[in-house]
Amino acid sequence: MNVTKLLAGRTAYMRASEIRELLKWATSDVISFGGGMPDPSTFPLEDIARIAAYVLENYGNKALQYGQTEGVPELRDELAKFSQSNGIKASAENIIVTVGSQEALELLGRLFLDEGSTIITENPTYIAALQSWRVYRPKIVGIPMDDNGMRTDILEKEVRRLKSEGANIKFIYTVPTAQNPMGVTMPDERRKHLLEIAEENDLLVVEDDPYGYFLFDNITVTRLKAMDRSGRVIYLSTASKIFSPGLRLGWVIAEPEIVRWFALGKQALNLNTPTLNQYMLLEGLRRGVIQRNIPKIVELYKKKRDAMLTALESYMPKGVTWTKPSGGMFIWVRVPEKIDTKEMLQVAITKYKVAYVPGHGFHVNEGEGRNTMRLNFTYSTFEQIDLGVRRLADTIREFL
Amino acid sequence: MNVTKLLAGRTAYMRASEIRELLKWATSDVISFGGGMPDPSTFPLEDIARIAAYVLENYGNKALQYGQTEGVPELRDELAKFSQSNGIKASAENIIVTVGSQEALELLGRLFLDEGSTIITENPTYIAALQSWRVYRPKIVGIPMDDNGMRTDILEKEVRRLKSEGANIKFIYTVPTAQNPMGVTMPDERRKHLLEIAEENDLLVVEDDPYGYFLFDNITVTRLKAMDRSGRVIYLSTASKIFSPGLRLGWVIAEPEIVRWFALGKQALNLNTPTLNQYMLLEGLRRGVIQRNIPKIVELYKKKRDAMLTALESYMPKGVTWTKPSGGMFIWVRVPEKIDTKEMLQVAITKYKVAYVPGHGFHVNEGEGRNTMRLNFTYSTFEQIDLGVRRLADTIREFL
Repeated sequence: MNVTKLLAGRTAYMRASEIRELLKWATSDVISFGGGMPDPSTFPLEDIARIAAYVLENYGNKALQYGQTEGVPELRDELAKFSQSNGIKASAENIIVTVGSQEALELLGRLFLDEGSTIITENPTYIAALQSWRVYRPKIVGIPMDDNGMRTDILEKEVRRLKSEGANIKFIYTVPTAQNPMGVTMPDERRKHLLEIAEENDLLVVEDDPYGYFLFDNITVTRLKAMDRSGRVIYLSTASKIFSPGLRLGWVIAEPEIVRWFALGKQALNLNTPTLNQYMLLEGLRRGVIQRNIPKIVELYKKKRDAMLTALESYMPKGVTWTKPSGGMFIWVRVPEKIDTKEMLQVAITKYKVAYVPGHGFHVNEGEGRNTMRLNFTYSTFEQIDLGVRRLADTIREFL
Repeated sequence: MNVTKLLAGRTAYMRASEIRELLKWATSDVISFGGGMPDPSTFPLEDIARIAAYVLENYGNKALQYGQTEGVPELRDELAKFSQSNGIKASAENIIVTVGSQEALELLGRLFLDEGSTIITENPTYIAALQSWRVYRPKIVGIPMDDNGMRTDILEKEVRRLKSEGANIKFIYTVPTAQNPMGVTMPDERRKHLLEIAEENDLLVVEDDPYGYFLFDNITVTRLKAMDRSGRVIYLSTASKIFSPGLRLGWVIAEPEIVRWFALGKQALNLNTPTLNQYMLLEGLRRGVIQRNIPKIVELYKKKRDAMLTALESYMPKGVTWTKPSGGMFIWVRVPEKIDTKEMLQVAITKYKVAYVPGHGFHVNEGEGRNTMRLNFTYSTFEQIDLGVRRLADTIREFL
């Protein structure tokens, strides 16, 4: 039967994630800098096996039963403690556990976006956030980036302009630390400026913080949520990069009223985040497994970042530039304007056996960033990083 | 800050689930026939503990890493086999794994419903399906039920009427086996009639099948998907009632084209169903843990159904009637018209210490079913069933 004629109008705005499609191509002979996968050696596998056994032994059937939509109460308490150690004052009522941060992004769209609503993001920004929200057909206003993250001077002007035009600004979305895709981090001064702008204009700020746990080079920053005095920051984080992405665990920290709306939206999505997995995260935090894991991840990823920077320095032809990420998982590469990285990808994969994510999709407007790409430095081995960057350089040379 | 003014229009159509709210009230002194929780003694806890250890030992980091949106390939294969044993021809490409069946319901709304789209459901029908879909503002047409499920004679007339009015019918939703909330099962003859109507009018049919595994009294029926010759049935099932609800695992069986749309929709929700949990279900099926568990569940739930029927017979005042469920988890009770079960609930919980789900919410139209309620007979112990029904009878007597 003809299914297409039955599809809802919004399906026209659903786009296949280039990142997810890439995951499928990542066969053994292709070196993939696509995706955003952690190094599997960072998963505390033995601890997790012990924890799984303990949870099933001690929590028993509770870990296998339905649970509250907001999350397992003990985990919400434990996440509050963990957040406090990261400078954020929170208690259980501020927290809802989600199926990865992705679910929190979807819920933001569902709760706040009408057709024509305005949201403000960094440009480029996290591709899967854009893809979640585009289904709701908002106007997305992108703010340029520099090495210190979102240009808040431009943000200030844009907010003024949008307000004067009567725009209904729903929130400002930022990945302030080790930004995806650029890897840059916003210093505290600029964070303060961002919050001042939000305060003056009574705006919500969404702080997406998957990478705040691993900054290299002894940089320290304060989370926006830790500076939030008026409950206007909705904070998102995840266990995917510090424990295991396969458990699909994220959490939101916000005012209790916002948490209640998230719970109402989440009921329709999946009733509750898997209970067993929540107890596993609870134990991972209680035992300090995650807290002890973080410095090891930082050490490994710093080396991998350095390896990729060295390889880029060694192999890339003139005219190719890249960011020096302060943390996180990605390096952002700019190739000469004549190259369209989306067109180049097919050749990169099939001929040169190397994959990346074309940068265009991270941008807010059609046509932007066609000569950019995002490279992940965490998943590949050191050997693959060297060989893959060499292959990528060869690919670029063919297109110059 | 004032969050309310920023909320999207659709939030007005998000209603707190009465079932979920009930879960919170289920303190130790309240006997709850609300919710739809399995008896925790049916969770194969020791097998699950062995499986968790095996999965982490043998699949290792693969079980902790991101995975494909459609699901772990080995699990999709295994679910295809399991489906074949239930009469459904399917291969991996027909299957997508979801975070419980709830996610599949949400995705149906997301993929198919525009404002003003028409869907057809049983009346009463599964409350959480209605709640998922109402956010998309479709017209919902309810078809009356009798002891053999949806009245397909009325369905036929309604489809004709709707077609003549130019309605855009997106799908017919049915829980044909041990229906939620009524507990009744549609015989094969009526199933054939339903599919004939769908065939003649080129309609999609959604078969929601959480309870098809536990029919009591040696009734056998054929799944609609097993009778489907033209790929028009979208089949939903779940491991929640035969393995563990806390793992949040469901699956959809449909044409590959429909599976691809589900995957596209799911990417925005949570990227993939938790990988560890999928491997656990894989092993649960491979080892026959689930297959061996089902007859034990049938035996237990049949006894519990009988215990509740006996208690209803013993304690209920005249004028109260109920269904004799052929399977599943629920008995549907009708009290005299003067009683509003929603109003009565507060007294039932606070004074008599017994809870149920008021029937109104399962209905398609405002004002219907105010004198009905759904009782769950699987979660409570035999003692609680007897005592709880007695308490409920006392509550009803107070309101007569």
